[in-house]
Amino acid sequence: MCGKTNRATASRGLGAPAHARDETAMIVRERPSAWKLFFVRRGSMMPRIWSQLVGVGVVSLLIVAAHRLAPGLVPGMNPAPFALIGIALSIFLSFRNSSCYDRWWEGRKLWGEITQGARDLARQSVMLPPAPRKRLLDGAILFARATEHHLRGTRPTKTPDAAPAETPDAILARLAALVAEALRGKEIEPIEALALNDSLTRLSHALTGCERLSNTPLPFAYTLLLHRTAYLFCFLLPFGFADSLGWAAPLATMLVAYTFLGLDALSEELEEPFGLAPNDLPLTSYATMIEIHLRQALGEDDVPPAPVAQDYLLH
Amino acid sequence: MCGKTNRATASRGLGAPAHARDETAMIVRERPSAWKLFFVRRGSMMPRIWSQLVGVGVVSLLIVAAHRLAPGLVPGMNPAPFALIGIALSIFLSFRNSSCYDRWWEGRKLWGEITQGARDLARQSVMLPPAPRKRLLDGAILFARATEHHLRGTRPTKTPDAAPAETPDAILARLAALVAEALRGKEIEPIEALALNDSLTRLSHALTGCERLSNTPLPFAYTLLLHRTAYLFCFLLPFGFADSLGWAAPLATMLVAYTFLGLDALSEELEEPFGLAPNDLPLTSYATMIEIHLRQALGEDDVPPAPVAQDYLLH
Amino acid sequence: MCGKTNRATASRGLGAPAHARDETAMIVRERPSAWKLFFVRRGSMMPRIWSQLVGVGVVSLLIVAAHRLAPGLVPGMNPAPFALIGIALSIFLSFRNSSCYDRWWEGRKLWGEITQGARDLARQSVMLPPAPRKRLLDGAILFARATEHHLRGTRPTKTPDAAPAETPDAILARLAALVAEALRGKEIEPIEALALNDSLTRLSHALTGCERLSNTPLPFAYTLLLHRTAYLFCFLLPFGFADSLGWAAPLATMLVAYTFLGLDALSEELEEPFGLAPNDLPLTSYATMIEIHLRQALGEDDVPPAPVAQDYLLH
Amino acid sequence: MCGKTNRATASRGLGAPAHARDETAMIVRERPSAWKLFFVRRGSMMPRIWSQLVGVGVVSLLIVAAHRLAPGLVPGMNPAPFALIGIALSIFLSFRNSSCYDRWWEGRKLWGEITQGARDLARQSVMLPPAPRKRLLDGAILFARATEHHLRGTRPTKTPDAAPAETPDAILARLAALVAEALRGKEIEPIEALALNDSLTRLSHALTGCERLSNTPLPFAYTLLLHRTAYLFCFLLPFGFADSLGWAAPLATMLVAYTFLGLDALSEELEEPFGLAPNDLPLTSYATMIEIHLRQALGEDDVPPAPVAQDYLLH
Amino acid sequence: MCGKTNRATASRGLGAPAHARDETAMIVRERPSAWKLFFVRRGSMMPRIWSQLVGVGVVSLLIVAAHRLAPGLVPGMNPAPFALIGIALSIFLSFRNSSCYDRWWEGRKLWGEITQGARDLARQSVMLPPAPRKRLLDGAILFARATEHHLRGTRPTKTPDAAPAETPDAILARLAALVAEALRGKEIEPIEALALNDSLTRLSHALTGCERLSNTPLPFAYTLLLHRTAYLFCFLLPFGFADSLGWAAPLATMLVAYTFLGLDALSEELEEPFGLAPNDLPLTSYATMIEIHLRQALGEDDVPPAPVAQDYLLH
Repeated sequence: MCGKTNRATASRGLGAPAHARDETAMIVRERPSAWKLFFVRRGSMMPRIWSQLVGVGVVSLLIVAAHRLAPGLVPGMNPAPFALIGIALSIFLSFRNSSCYDRWWEGRKLWGEITQGARDLARQSVMLPPAPRKRLLDGAILFARATEHHLRGTRPTKTPDAAPAETPDAILARLAALVAEALRGKEIEPIEALALNDSLTRLSHALTGCERLSNTPLPFAYTLLLHRTAYLFCFLLPFGFADSLGWAAPLATMLVAYTFLGLDALSEELEEPFGLAPNDLPLTSYATMIEIHLRQALGEDDVPPAPVAQDYLLH
Repeated sequence: MCGKTNRATASRGLGAPAHARDETAMIVRERPSAWKLFFVRRGSMMPRIWSQLVGVGVVSLLIVAAHRLAPGLVPGMNPAPFALIGIALSIFLSFRNSSCYDRWWEGRKLWGEITQGARDLARQSVMLPPAPRKRLLDGAILFARATEHHLRGTRPTKTPDAAPAETPDAILARLAALVAEALRGKEIEPIEALALNDSLTRLSHALTGCERLSNTPLPFAYTLLLHRTAYLFCFLLPFGFADSLGWAAPLATMLVAYTFLGLDALSEELEEPFGLAPNDLPLTSYATMIEIHLRQALGEDDVPPAPVAQDYLLH
Repeated sequence: MCGKTNRATASRGLGAPAHARDETAMIVRERPSAWKLFFVRRGSMMPRIWSQLVGVGVVSLLIVAAHRLAPGLVPGMNPAPFALIGIALSIFLSFRNSSCYDRWWEGRKLWGEITQGARDLARQSVMLPPAPRKRLLDGAILFARATEHHLRGTRPTKTPDAAPAETPDAILARLAALVAEALRGKEIEPIEALALNDSLTRLSHALTGCERLSNTPLPFAYTLLLHRTAYLFCFLLPFGFADSLGWAAPLATMLVAYTFLGLDALSEELEEPFGLAPNDLPLTSYATMIEIHLRQALGEDDVPPAPVAQDYLLH
Repeated sequence: MCGKTNRATASRGLGAPAHARDETAMIVRERPSAWKLFFVRRGSMMPRIWSQLVGVGVVSLLIVAAHRLAPGLVPGMNPAPFALIGIALSIFLSFRNSSCYDRWWEGRKLWGEITQGARDLARQSVMLPPAPRKRLLDGAILFARATEHHLRGTRPTKTPDAAPAETPDAILARLAALVAEALRGKEIEPIEALALNDSLTRLSHALTGCERLSNTPLPFAYTLLLHRTAYLFCFLLPFGFADSLGWAAPLATMLVAYTFLGLDALSEELEEPFGLAPNDLPLTSYATMIEIHLRQALGEDDVPPAPVAQDYLLH
Repeated sequence: MCGKTNRATASRGLGAPAHARDETAMIVRERPSAWKLFFVRRGSMMPRIWSQLVGVGVVSLLIVAAHRLAPGLVPGMNPAPFALIGIALSIFLSFRNSSCYDRWWEGRKLWGEITQGARDLARQSVMLPPAPRKRLLDGAILFARATEHHLRGTRPTKTPDAAPAETPDAILARLAALVAEALRGKEIEPIEALALNDSLTRLSHALTGCERLSNTPLPFAYTLLLHRTAYLFCFLLPFGFADSLGWAAPLATMLVAYTFLGLDALSEELEEPFGLAPNDLPLTSYATMIEIHLRQALGEDDVPPAPVAQDYLLH
């Protein structure tokens, strides 16, 4: 399958400079063959929904058995109404799913802006004297780290430089003062200050966007409405399948439940792109790559190791 | 369920500085377990649609009973035509739903721009003398408060600074004059004035965008068309289910009605993101967070308390 | 229903300054209750499609009657094929519908840009001497009026200032010359001229965008293809419903036709957002609000009255 | 039908100045009545797909006849599997359709940018001496013409000014040199040069975007996959309809085929928005309108006639 | 078919200057006729999925045969449940498909930005002395080549200029230093330096965006969830078709499998737009076209040959 070669050649670093590239990757595994994909566990939604699936299967079996034993008491039903409910539900679940995916992808784009902003600062500050340049780029590294912890609600364990309590926005204010001083000290041209300020505004834009994603979940009513309907539907479905599918009904019900509840669980994971679930964004790695990049731009030796996936996962 | 940890760690402040962070949150509750989600009331659409649901259920029961008693008079019908109507309706409801969600999310983005604009003003004015800087940032706080009341049609109860009748746009004009004076008085460099003016234009953009959302509802014909079809459909559905589902028809009809009418009601709530319904945006909290941030940037002590959710709700 | 309060509090002016706000609103009615929504006529598509609906109903009745009288000659048909055609048609109609809605919303956004551009000119020109400032803002008012008439193909009945034949773009050119003179006369700083020019470019962008919407309808083939299929479908549907629904077939057919033909007619109205149909954009009111705003910024007394809805409609 | 008035009043020129407006229009016909729409040929997909439709109809007839004669040999089939395939196909065709429409609309937007860029150059160059201004605007006219021919792969028959072999990008480079000279010769202020350069960059952006659309078709695999499935489906469908619809099967099949193959053919036309098919964009008219506009801005008399639709079509 | 002419006239170069245009094209074949499209192999998904299709067909045959021999043991099932699952699956596959297509198209847009950035540098540097201009444009060529290899994880075989290990971002930093020197050496005006820096930022934006696409695949859970469901569905489908379609069931199953698995495989190819699969983007050709363009702008003779498709493919 030519897809394999494709994937393998495109094994990817996180925007790492070429020499750091080979040591890091977000997903280091080759894409498994079509057959093996059935047995992959990592990244699957199975660990999150297996208990619900088993529940659906057991209820299904009981309903089919009861229907066989006492068809008068537990009647089989025409599957057509279930088709109507199921398709409507698919359409609404699909909406929720793409909204959550859009949030995840917007989160990724915003971290791309942080990466670009940090690089632009490095490029645009090339005419600054070494001391203020180092302060500027150290600040940018600190900004990435602080934003990571700000979004995840965690605390930095090893602070690379200075005060741990400084907020991302306070760091940007400090850097803006630094640029303003350099401009008044005639160390940089006005248009260079303009470019540096634009990069700070880009970082500010990314920060506000990340906070917006982080503090504004999807309206809670969606979760309630779709979650309830999906569960009720999965537990009622065996009635619709009992007559038409017989003992195969539990299997078919579990297949439907696997898709519906799996998408529901995945949507929930993607809704919070800055969390710590397996499909969330590896913010720590992004911040580390920014630090590596800026330290190399400063010509420093104290470069942290590139992030390495453990058990196929980056953090 | 690992989703719980994820959510818990990402308990979120509204872009609050780190030390204010722990006291505030838009949704402070942990995500309930899958089972408890069935009994959550807050944020659910149930309070808005329960009377319609009961109506649908009662009509359903009557139809099934009448069909049982007098099958010639109240015939059961083939469910296939209902599937056609129901799926078409799902597709159109889904359109209205995503349009309304997009309005809600655009409203959130525009308030993100207001937050960013206020922060950018604070960062870019760092070289201004204290007096005009205070006037500038006080103006930005006033702008956020005035926009909140302008959009909600409410009146400020406690005006923090000055004239309550000043419109958001008049505030921006006052700040622009302040920047122009500072430029002519050589207190700031031309490119600093440029950056400040860009921030004012960003605030002006957000204001116009908010007004656009607020004074241009979705074309009223959508509401009429879909509302009417959805209600007619829900009240006709029992005829289609009477034969195929028997006494289970009311339950199935209510499940369909819960999803359709619930989404319809939620869309209506999201259509006006600046309203006061439970799923609308907490503008007061956003404005308070901006005030906290700018007062801290000014080094003031008179910082309002961070917004706290009451009964799981922020305002 | 709490939706009522929500809507009522958010009764909206068109970005009107606060004191003009209470006199104007695009839609002044409260949202009717769920029950009354069935009898609202204004904004409904009914006036446009009632004749087609009656036609569909009559044909339906004739088909059902003929089928009852001569089942061999006018056979009832399996509804399944109709479900296939109907769902496919829903999907395609939904595409056309969202494209037309996007055009309408883009038109609204572009007029938001015109409003913002006019306000930005007022704010950014605060340092200009009174005479050129008045000429600038009078030009901006004229631009909004001229764009309104340009897009609607109408002629201004009362020209507020000068030559009626001046095109919107010619007005922008005149204003640009005015700014260039002020710059050369050292009346404004270079960065102020830059900001004013950016606002003129924003107005130019909005104008070109409006013209694009106005002179590029949706490809005519969509209209033909979907219109034809929708009508054929609605007139064939009774054959599919005659057997399964009996005398209820005309009702079901009319329900389907109401949704399909109603959406078709609404899409046609939204496709031309600058027209004069009830759901089109109230350009005259937008232009009036801009004039009110700029005249107030100039401190003039000759402010036109705020637009008032007549029979629930703004123009 | 009030739609008629709406359309009629909004008869549209291509961003033409008001006095040229009445002579030109992209689609000059009034919208036909609902009934006449069935017999419109221009713009319909019928000319492209009638042979396929006839083929589908003939095959349908043969299958129904064979099924009637030898039901054992040519069995009728349950339509349910066809519904599954048909709805899946509708969903995928709808994706391709909206992707192609987005390409067409993006093409239109990019030409809107060219129009705006040309106008902005005219407005921003008002302070240039007549000679360089004429060279600048002549260059902009030439740019629009060259882009038109570049995208369509045609050759200009009547070159208005200079070397026919000059590429659009080379023209932009020439204009940039002209602006740079004017700046160094102190004929324009730096911020005026900045604005002119921004307009050139806007034109460069539009040109690159147009080339992207023109040289990157939709992945060919989509065309293959959906084209094959759609045709196979249409030719197999009569088996599913033979039993349930009888002699009406050919009609129903042709209705499905008209929608599916018509959308397929329209998508193919819109995929290449710069082609010469009836629903493609009238690039020649756009370029002519730009020339009219700029020649009027220069105060010249040698203005080309406004584009006139021939047989309802603009080129 | 007029589509043929349309396509043929729009045979496309990759933004090539007119004289290079005729020698190159991404897809050089004319669009085949509707009939021949059934036998095209290049670009089809068939080579990737034929083994799965054969598998589905064989299993189908076995199931139908077993059902015929032992209907009690291998029961045919009502196709309605399969319709429900199949339509839900179509909706979810369609989501994955459009997400992957969006990634592919975003990749194309980002390379359009690289092309535009390189051209803008050429246009904006026209006032630089020849030596630094050559260094600037050589750097831009090198940037395009380095980005190509960076994204594909390949190594440049023939380095046109300098150090092969230089990363794309390091090249941009070098060019920024070059511009800063020219500004301080008064070789260019400040606003010219501003424009050049904006172009470098555009290139930086495109680079970061490409890396984002390259190192952030779609969440792996989507692939797992949809891949598993699609395969299970295709292998279970014959049970649903055995009764209703009889010996035609394998054909219908294979048609469904062709569409579902084909879209699944195509989505996988488009997910990584910078890979080497037939439907991926021809980065090498893009980089070559940039080199041709810039070398011509420098007036050099050492222009590489325009890319030529081999076996209908560009690389």
